[in-house]
Amino acid sequence: MKVYFDNAATTAMDDRVIEAMLPFMKSHFGNPSSVHSHGREVRSAIEKSRKKVAELLNASPSEIFFTSGGTEADNTALVCGIESHGITHAITSPIEHHAVLHTLEVLAKKGAVRLHLLEVNEKGEINLDHLKSLLKENPKSLVSLMHANNEIGNLNDLDRIGTLAKEYDAFFHSDTVQTIGHFIHDLKNLHVDSLVAGGHKFHGPKGSGFLFVRKGKKIHPLIHGGAQERNMRGGTENVIGIIGIAKALELAYEDMAGHRTHIEKIKTHFIKKLTDDIPGVSFNGLSEDLEKSLYTVLNVSLPPSDSNRGMLLFNLDLEGISASGGSACSSGATVGSHVLRALDHNPERDSVRFSFSRFNTIEEVDYTVGKLKELYAVEA
Amino acid sequence: MKVYFDNAATTAMDDRVIEAMLPFMKSHFGNPSSVHSHGREVRSAIEKSRKKVAELLNASPSEIFFTSGGTEADNTALVCGIESHGITHAITSPIEHHAVLHTLEVLAKKGAVRLHLLEVNEKGEINLDHLKSLLKENPKSLVSLMHANNEIGNLNDLDRIGTLAKEYDAFFHSDTVQTIGHFIHDLKNLHVDSLVAGGHKFHGPKGSGFLFVRKGKKIHPLIHGGAQERNMRGGTENVIGIIGIAKALELAYEDMAGHRTHIEKIKTHFIKKLTDDIPGVSFNGLSEDLEKSLYTVLNVSLPPSDSNRGMLLFNLDLEGISASGGSACSSGATVGSHVLRALDHNPERDSVRFSFSRFNTIEEVDYTVGKLKELYAVEA
Ligand SMILES: Cc1ncc(COP(=O)(O)O)c(C=O)c1O
Ligand SMILES: Cc1ncc(COP(=O)(O)O)c(C=O)c1O
Repeated sequence: MKVYFDNAATTAMDDRVIEAMLPFMKSHFGNPSSVHSHGREVRSAIEKSRKKVAELLNASPSEIFFTSGGTEADNTALVCGIESHGITHAITSPIEHHAVLHTLEVLAKKGAVRLHLLEVNEKGEINLDHLKSLLKENPKSLVSLMHANNEIGNLNDLDRIGTLAKEYDAFFHSDTVQTIGHFIHDLKNLHVDSLVAGGHKFHGPKGSGFLFVRKGKKIHPLIHGGAQERNMRGGTENVIGIIGIAKALELAYEDMAGHRTHIEKIKTHFIKKLTDDIPGVSFNGLSEDLEKSLYTVLNVSLPPSDSNRGMLLFNLDLEGISASGGSACSSGATVGSHVLRALDHNPERDSVRFSFSRFNTIEEVDYTVGKLKELYAVEA
Repeated sequence: MKVYFDNAATTAMDDRVIEAMLPFMKSHFGNPSSVHSHGREVRSAIEKSRKKVAELLNASPSEIFFTSGGTEADNTALVCGIESHGITHAITSPIEHHAVLHTLEVLAKKGAVRLHLLEVNEKGEINLDHLKSLLKENPKSLVSLMHANNEIGNLNDLDRIGTLAKEYDAFFHSDTVQTIGHFIHDLKNLHVDSLVAGGHKFHGPKGSGFLFVRKGKKIHPLIHGGAQERNMRGGTENVIGIIGIAKALELAYEDMAGHRTHIEKIKTHFIKKLTDDIPGVSFNGLSEDLEKSLYTVLNVSLPPSDSNRGMLLFNLDLEGISASGGSACSSGATVGSHVLRALDHNPERDSVRFSFSRFNTIEEVDYTVGKLKELYAVEA
């Protein structure tokens, strides 16, 4: 059996997304900036995609900018947000994705900004009182806090953070790569100034993404060149990427509740099976709590075991099970997770992130827990 | 008849490129940073693509970094080249692509660098004595000069420029977007420190590109995040884009001489027909000179005509002919071309860039010149 439980790293493309992209590979090949018929048909498809994305997020099309992915979008919001708005203090947490953390660290190193890291507890919960006191000291800061953590699944309360940020006139950026396409975002009513998506996290193509920047919070481009994306991003558009991410978002919204129900069943079953079958198992962060974590992520902490120490992912892979030790984006198991480190995770225990999509099944869970039982030599 | 003569703006994808990409849309969907089997098969395909590109350009795989296109690659080379090497003077020309010109202008405005623009004559030829004297005054500058101009097709002598740059210890970047896939580049023997490609200019996908940076001239990333591209570009890779650009380059090299012969015939025929049939026609830049310009580009200057003034592209489009007024990347006809302006082109005359690919035919040229004759009311 082949099991793919690494959907927080990337997802399989939906066939209907591929179908939507194909005409733009085969026949509609014009450059969207060209004024002739070959160009206009492609321009029109891009603008339809932008309109669709905006509608689904309750935003305006002029607030949506297509990028090469979540990382580029995060970089644009942070680098250009700070520069365009004359910001001198940035507040984030130690368990953000590297697309945020490394970008802010580089800015801090250059002296462009002073960086403040929020306290997190051993469950990965951010101390919002700390946020409040930092904002009080440094109003007009940039706050960058993700909607959901990609490793442990913890959900942040964007409403509360956004309201706080607004109170202190801060620029609030949120890395929503793990929630766009899985949760509803109502951008007219959320106090967020910018947020980002990566198409490949919800069955769209890799190398596609978008950045939302609220009207009135305009920032300058990271990539300079032609007048594409209303002067916000130079470079010939990744047309199939744009068509693909918009189609994928449309499909995600078409039956989000159904997908959620299906995936929650898988996660609930997984938690129960593990708890029943593997003595000493526990869960990292809040991932066991269905209310407070992504329904797509379960981060499992396994009891110390000589035969699996540092080899768990490898052993699972041998059984045909693809899972992750942390963020795939930072090259897998070998480096170790900065998120688990920030949570003071016991290094004697191996951790594995299982992450789900609507294409997974209960049988895959049973198979996986069965293999874990064997690996941990639990008697049947 | 539908005629596509805008191949310098973008090209139709080769069917074999699409075929190469499809498996990575349908079945091989893993994240190349994941260590499990789903990830490893994709990682391996990416590294094969890198090796192929490097081989064809006589470079080392560790010198090739995949990007979202030519523009991002230009931005990376310039912004990060200047910063990483402590460069304080940049030398370029007024007829570079906006991906270079705007990027350097922004850096100059920020005070990161002093910008020097080389003199160009009315044919778009760069004054290399001026380059030499600027380099003498400011050794260790960054020199950014394109291989071929995308509007008028002029080829620069990269050998001479590279040798000059080396003499004065300058960092030499070349925007080779219009020549990669159409001319041979031998990077072991050319004194260039960085150059760039965009896949969609040679029948690959839009949103794909690469940056070559010479070993020993290492620069830091523009986009921070994960450890992708050996820490040179964060962000989940555009896998199908990478597979596509490498396949397109492979196909380009497979029969470059054949393509060139075919396209040169088209260009030669076009020049002859226009000269024979349209009194007062002339050619912008060096595009009439087959030795000194891209074989893919012909920039035509038409005699003043009340019925076509500012409407020529529109009139051609009505006849099914797609051509360009300048760079598609800077949104076409309406803005006017900074390149033609730099050449003191007579604004009474309309200019149109016809640009060719191996998919064009002699019949398309005859049809187009026939329509131009009608538009310019030349008697048959
Ligand atoms: C000379 C030149 N440089 C840079 C670019 C930008 O490349 P891309 O469209 O892949 O971003 C283009 C084409 O648009 C070009 O012709
Ligand atoms: C939370 C989070 N932010 C940012 C990213 C980066 O997005 P992308 O891979 O599209 O560059 C990812 C995924 O890799 C992520 O999980």
